[in-house]
Amino acid sequence: MKNNNQTPIKIKEGKIIEFLESKKHEINYLIETYLPRKVSEEWMEFIFGKPRYRYSLESTQNTLINPIWDFLDRGGKRWRPVLFLLIYEALGGKKEKFPKDLLIIPELVHNGTIMVDDIEDEGELRRGKPTLHKLFGEDVAINAGNFIYFFPLLAIQKNRDKLSEKQINKIYDIYVQEMVNLSLGQGTDIYWHKGKAKEIDESEYLQMCAYKTGCLARMSAKIAAICASANNETISKVGKIAEALGVAFQIQDDILDIDLKDEARNNFGKSFGNDIKEGKRTLMVIYTSQKANEKDKERLAEILDKEENNEKEIVEAIKILEKYGSLDYARKKAREIVEASWKEAEPLLMENGSKELLKEFVNYLIERQV
Amino acid sequence: MKNNNQTPIKIKEGKIIEFLESKKHEINYLIETYLPRKVSEEWMEFIFGKPRYRYSLESTQNTLINPIWDFLDRGGKRWRPVLFLLIYEALGGKKEKFPKDLLIIPELVHNGTIMVDDIEDEGELRRGKPTLHKLFGEDVAINAGNFIYFFPLLAIQKNRDKLSEKQINKIYDIYVQEMVNLSLGQGTDIYWHKGKAKEIDESEYLQMCAYKTGCLARMSAKIAAICASANNETISKVGKIAEALGVAFQIQDDILDIDLKDEARNNFGKSFGNDIKEGKRTLMVIYTSQKANEKDKERLAEILDKEENNEKEIVEAIKILEKYGSLDYARKKAREIVEASWKEAEPLLMENGSKELLKEFVNYLIERQV
Repeated sequence: MKNNNQTPIKIKEGKIIEFLESKKHEINYLIETYLPRKVSEEWMEFIFGKPRYRYSLESTQNTLINPIWDFLDRGGKRWRPVLFLLIYEALGGKKEKFPKDLLIIPELVHNGTIMVDDIEDEGELRRGKPTLHKLFGEDVAINAGNFIYFFPLLAIQKNRDKLSEKQINKIYDIYVQEMVNLSLGQGTDIYWHKGKAKEIDESEYLQMCAYKTGCLARMSAKIAAICASANNETISKVGKIAEALGVAFQIQDDILDIDLKDEARNNFGKSFGNDIKEGKRTLMVIYTSQKANEKDKERLAEILDKEENNEKEIVEAIKILEKYGSLDYARKKAREIVEASWKEAEPLLMENGSKELLKEFVNYLIERQV
Repeated sequence: MKNNNQTPIKIKEGKIIEFLESKKHEINYLIETYLPRKVSEEWMEFIFGKPRYRYSLESTQNTLINPIWDFLDRGGKRWRPVLFLLIYEALGGKKEKFPKDLLIIPELVHNGTIMVDDIEDEGELRRGKPTLHKLFGEDVAINAGNFIYFFPLLAIQKNRDKLSEKQINKIYDIYVQEMVNLSLGQGTDIYWHKGKAKEIDESEYLQMCAYKTGCLARMSAKIAAICASANNETISKVGKIAEALGVAFQIQDDILDIDLKDEARNNFGKSFGNDIKEGKRTLMVIYTSQKANEKDKERLAEILDKEENNEKEIVEAIKILEKYGSLDYARKKAREIVEASWKEAEPLLMENGSKELLKEFVNYLIERQV
């Protein structure tokens, strides 16, 4: 469990960092067993079944495997599968019954959604490299992204020995429901980006986050609970912590995008003030719009709605957001949401070490600087 | 069952046309019960569950409902659900156990794939109107398309009383597998469009079609067979007819795109010679490349690989394809594929009228002029 990796930026010390790092390798390895880096006839039949005519291996390598690995190799925290693992353990799931392969589901789907989001948002950079569609073309990127919306579910079929028919159906049900909800969250976010709805209230914003960012975390937690044979009430409550975590994670992401004090920026591989450029209505923007004087409010909206922004404008917008204390407000809000859900679910978790780790994990996610 | 609709173009007479027309209304109505044209709080909760905070109805109306109905209202044959229905009946499925709502699955998913395909192919027109992303933006179109990759599956959860746990399980498995296969077919098609693999043989081409176009037909047929409590062998065989049908349908589509004798062209709402512009390697192109002299072969490849084509070049390419009889070859091939699968599955079908209708349906699909 020792972490031999050099991390370029200072992060909070603690068991959870070490745990995340060690699991990262395990998850990458697992993904590689389902999606090897080099296509073969054998793998094609394993995944797609026996062909009636003949597969084109070359196109599979170039349109599915290469783009997806290009993306996965850029890193990422792999925290959704870790959440899965921790919840399974905290609910007393048995080690020998653990359908480990299912860990690839939340991770791959998450990566698929970012690939597709980057096209929708016309993103230029992702994790320090040009976005996937800039490298491979939009057609390849959309198709590869959609492929990993379904492909990881094959792990369910291949782990039938560890799951009952009923569990499998529940997993599928949850998966479908969360993907449906995800599209709702994403659609809402897109609509707001376009500046079409200028008056958004906080509760609508939080709902959008709950669905845009909370869905995959909630899916991961709920599937873990189903695997651990939890009852419906427990499934729902751990789902709620995860959702809250997703919301808090999103708020923290939005804060990091504009936090001028962020020392880690240069290592972050993400360009600065993206959300301002995109005209995103974040919690900070909504809060500021309520608190600011008419002049500041109008100027902020003006910068957000402009097609193109220069750096000066971005800094100006951030200064307005800071002036009304919206960053602190957002930080406080994120913490409150997570704490409320944690309190509800805590009594259901077992005192076997994983509860403590889960708590540390929750804190890490909402306080992270990267 | 009388067809009161005026059809603008002459089509082959027969019971199947009437049947298709009458079912079209039924299917549209069914879709509307799941996806009403006007958003409401009630519907939101029916589909997305109770919100933790508050839904934005306005964004749902504008990013999901409006674009999807704009697309659905353009028409389409709705033949995949009809295939579902005919197979269910031909396999002796009981009327009172029929999970009718599942008919929306192949139809909506099919429409989702075209919306997304049009973005991937940079299509300009679809069914006589600008492609969806041209009207609503790429972001909205991708998201709406992805939404209907999952949304219709909610019909499964809502029809639990008509299906056993085992049937539901199988339906989900099939769905996932076919969506995975679809991405493989689509990826291959994209790769070839880009002119990256110039030597494609017929068996690779047919496999691509089996996955790109055959998957949704196969999914529809297999799910119908599962609903009718068919055994695995039967499920597989009706899947094969449907796959063959999908392949033949694709070949016929490719023929219609370049058939200069097509009188229905002006009513078709599809621009002419699209496949040539896109550089698509159709069965006709593959056949011609094998048969043609060096000069014709090179000229054909040159036109296909050009970024932009004028009408003169398109007609020139078609003349080369005609010169070597590739259109007749493709027609013959499509028929052979369907006939071979039909022979295999025929003994499994019941003599209750639906078999005859299914046969007529098969003929219609591969001989259609629109």
